[in-house]
Amino acid sequence: MPVNLSAPKAQSLLPVKGVQLGFTEANIRKQNRKDVLVIKLIEGTRVAGVFTKNQFCAAPVTLCKEHLASGNEIRALVVNTGNANAGTGEFGLAHAKETCAALADLIGAKSAAQILPFSTGVILEPLPVDRVIAGLPACISNLKEDNWLNAAEAIMTTDIVAKGYSKQISLAGKTVTVTGISKGSGMIHPNMATMLGYIATDAAISQLGLEKLIDYAVNRSFNCITVDGDTSTNDSLILMATGQSGITEVQADSSDYLLLRDAITEVATLLAQAIVRDGEGATKFMTVQVEAGRDIEECRKVAYAISHSPLIKTAFFASDPNLGRILAAIGYAGVDQLDVNAMQLYLGDVLVAEHGGRAEAYREEQGAAVMKEAEILVRVVLNRGEASATVWTCDFSYDYVKINADYRS
Amino acid sequence: MPVNLSAPKAQSLLPVKGVQLGFTEANIRKQNRKDVLVIKLIEGTRVAGVFTKNQFCAAPVTLCKEHLASGNEIRALVVNTGNANAGTGEFGLAHAKETCAALADLIGAKSAAQILPFSTGVILEPLPVDRVIAGLPACISNLKEDNWLNAAEAIMTTDIVAKGYSKQISLAGKTVTVTGISKGSGMIHPNMATMLGYIATDAAISQLGLEKLIDYAVNRSFNCITVDGDTSTNDSLILMATGQSGITEVQADSSDYLLLRDAITEVATLLAQAIVRDGEGATKFMTVQVEAGRDIEECRKVAYAISHSPLIKTAFFASDPNLGRILAAIGYAGVDQLDVNAMQLYLGDVLVAEHGGRAEAYREEQGAAVMKEAEILVRVVLNRGEASATVWTCDFSYDYVKINADYRS
Repeated sequence: MPVNLSAPKAQSLLPVKGVQLGFTEANIRKQNRKDVLVIKLIEGTRVAGVFTKNQFCAAPVTLCKEHLASGNEIRALVVNTGNANAGTGEFGLAHAKETCAALADLIGAKSAAQILPFSTGVILEPLPVDRVIAGLPACISNLKEDNWLNAAEAIMTTDIVAKGYSKQISLAGKTVTVTGISKGSGMIHPNMATMLGYIATDAAISQLGLEKLIDYAVNRSFNCITVDGDTSTNDSLILMATGQSGITEVQADSSDYLLLRDAITEVATLLAQAIVRDGEGATKFMTVQVEAGRDIEECRKVAYAISHSPLIKTAFFASDPNLGRILAAIGYAGVDQLDVNAMQLYLGDVLVAEHGGRAEAYREEQGAAVMKEAEILVRVVLNRGEASATVWTCDFSYDYVKINADYRS
Repeated sequence: MPVNLSAPKAQSLLPVKGVQLGFTEANIRKQNRKDVLVIKLIEGTRVAGVFTKNQFCAAPVTLCKEHLASGNEIRALVVNTGNANAGTGEFGLAHAKETCAALADLIGAKSAAQILPFSTGVILEPLPVDRVIAGLPACISNLKEDNWLNAAEAIMTTDIVAKGYSKQISLAGKTVTVTGISKGSGMIHPNMATMLGYIATDAAISQLGLEKLIDYAVNRSFNCITVDGDTSTNDSLILMATGQSGITEVQADSSDYLLLRDAITEVATLLAQAIVRDGEGATKFMTVQVEAGRDIEECRKVAYAISHSPLIKTAFFASDPNLGRILAAIGYAGVDQLDVNAMQLYLGDVLVAEHGGRAEAYREEQGAAVMKEAEILVRVVLNRGEASATVWTCDFSYDYVKINADYRS
């Protein structure tokens, strides 16, 4: 069961003027489930994207990057679940192109390069492109601005609950809406998770501002999560700004930019954390906070060493304060000239280790009490600098194994 | 159940002249189990060691390194299981020193620096040093040359079976024996595994030759295995040469050296593979072989990315040829400018992927047939150079979670 996470109510996901969403059941992999989504954007919408750094990136990722770089105005996105169209070679690329061309035709776009394609699901199997394309008219026939919850459901794979958040802010006296959806839930790792994320706003913002903003938001949200350390072939986050709120165009680094940036980062952070909360088999949500390091890089190394350790993750699953495993992970994280005697380890508010060993006042019952919580803070204070980093992760349970052993059956 | 591995028969572990082993049940952590071992070495024995690179290394590891560097002749080793004496600060160091001093007294050694101490088990809990020391006289009273199987049993933690191998070779017309024991079985990662390994030979060899030999053997055995990617605080491998076989001293790089080196490397490799075969919850033994890379470094990166991926390991557990997950791991392994279209992936003899996608002739039944085996070869041909690397690992099962969630209870 997801950790302190339930699906959003339909009415809590606010429409974004200029963004319409339509879905269908196209039988991509399973019967009777929404599996193709079209997001149609009003003319003038600006779009920016961040994609997986996996060198085996999927065909749609390659194509998304090309289309965004082409300078064509993006008019629609198409997402299928059930098949990742990854490890599919030149046929995969051809299938993604056919999908874009078909959707461009259907919505009257001039070029297939105005479409961004996305796929998520099983790798190394041919995309059933005919079924994707056959589903597009149905998606278009139910395009609506208030279809965000349906859209969130249509992109799920092993996710248990749909993920979506909205936030409204006031810019120059006008209401600006930010709404986003995401999906996880295994193969979750920075740069980026096996995730798809779509965030839209009706703010108007320059292309430069939009690109700066997506980098800022991703580095504080999707690039701070991990479930299993596997970096997917398909990760994509798309930020869309329709400009339909009626505000003047926000420029990078203006005070309005900062407000908008923080609102979008908040939605991105909630979406990213939701992926961890619904991580495959997750029963606990852990915040791993590493402080007082020499630079962010070493703080992240320590945070990820802790967050990736199967030994630590299984101990959290068992609510076992086996904190020595955390010390071991700190020790092999690869921090240059680490003085293990100078650092401190906290579990929640409890000081667990210092001077290279167990803290004198620490009692196992204190650790056990913290471990029983569903949300746990692990804090490492390196005491050698001013940098810090945070990673969100989950525990490792029987169900993680079950889900991933059974995924294709 | 361990994969194609059973405990050795007592008579298959051949005595090594000059090495006596004694054990006891000292109630370190559990009742009614062998948990303290003393290995006594005849005068003139040369000793070399390789230790964990974890910066949070355990107190006994720190002391072992000091004692080996001190130039004192090592006269005995003492090992306890049940407690790792790691993350125990200055008290831990004091406890390890007390243990060495007590054993030195009992065997009449001049200095505590002639003793090497080892601990394995739970981290961050104080070593019950009084019980370790109280057990030493019993160990000494049953010192025998043919106690290798008892010794292998005395160092087990979550290991299911004891691990030991012997090999004999003929050098200059005389029989030379090599016998070794090891323990795993979680927190297994290169540099090195959570493992203890002790290999003894009655060959005579120069100190330089011995140190060269241990590096050679470790790089081809213990540094090629992984269970869960966690590098332990306590890993230690010790190589002992008593010189009691009556041969002249073997010099580095002589033809006798090569024969001895290969025999010891063979024993080390079997001991290392045994740790993986008995990896926590293991049901499959995988050999991940990466070929035709630019250098060994990048081959190892790819092999470890595959070997550490929980997604791949759970798919192997399920006998599911979900090979796309392997492609994804290759893609995020961090190989510089990897051309995914140039590489090939084999499962056993079956060509699975090439040209960036599924191989044309590949049929899922072929992959499924290979996946049903208990021993599986994963072969990646990068086609960009002449280097290669091999890593041995196991799958990831419900039992891995169970064992690690319950470890301390």
